[in-house]
Amino acid sequence: MDLSADEARELFANARAAHMATVGADGQPHVVVHTFAVSGDWIFHAVDHKPKRSTNLKRIRNIREHPAVSVLVDQYNDSDWERLWWVRADGDAYVLELDEERADPVGLLTAKYPQYREHPPEGPVIAVQVKRWTGWAYSGPPGRPT
Amino acid sequence: MDLSADEARELFANARAAHMATVGADGQPHVVVHTFAVSGDWIFHAVDHKPKRSTNLKRIRNIREHPAVSVLVDQYNDSDWERLWWVRADGDAYVLELDEERADPVGLLTAKYPQYREHPPEGPVIAVQVKRWTGWAYSGPPGRPT
Repeated sequence: MDLSADEARELFANARAAHMATVGADGQPHVVVHTFAVSGDWIFHAVDHKPKRSTNLKRIRNIREHPAVSVLVDQYNDSDWERLWWVRADGDAYVLELDEERADPVGLLTAKYPQYREHPPEGPVIAVQVKRWTGWAYSGPPGRPT
Repeated sequence: MDLSADEARELFANARAAHMATVGADGQPHVVVHTFAVSGDWIFHAVDHKPKRSTNLKRIRNIREHPAVSVLVDQYNDSDWERLWWVRADGDAYVLELDEERADPVGLLTAKYPQYREHPPEGPVIAVQVKRWTGWAYSGPPGRPT
């Protein structure tokens, strides 16, 4: 069944990994998996590597040429398809490279993922301003009265 | 480390769920999660629902307007980032709707997923002809001598 925007955003925010689709100037789609943190209608993720290497990543080039992105979080469970749910966030992405822009998002990521505490991500932050949250759950959202 | 095309395809083929990015005529990216089966350089997945409803799915409309797709399989493990790997398959997608076109792909899907045996997918099959397999594994591919 379809989820409300609020249900969708909450399920999305609590997940651990997301898949983001971008499009190049040539119209070719590209898809990557990444960790992320949500704040309001923003999704943040960061490239691990140092700027010199990471600014040439395809996702960064694509976003600079074509800001529209689509980000999906889902729960696929091979032993129980009735537990499947997904949430899609569509919006526009921005690449943040200045220290003062990166600080808050990197703080959110470090708070969510203990793995980042010793080695915070060093590359650019990708910030997605979500225009539309949509979602679906086979059995309805966890926690909604049935 | 980077994987060879053969290593990438083998890891991909044995995974249980994939994420596919498509692009609409308006240039907007779209991303979905799906089960799949691999045969050679082809990836097949099928829409569950009956044709009438499913032929209006966004992924189907996108592929008809813009065949280029990007499909990702990955292993994200929240408790051990060193086990991360991903494989990306880039290629062109086709929508198969005739019974004689659907039969072999649906057979492959039913062989891979016991869940389909009672309820085979009834909608169109999406066939992706892969032009490029690329992949990366934090610790090298499972099975490669270190």
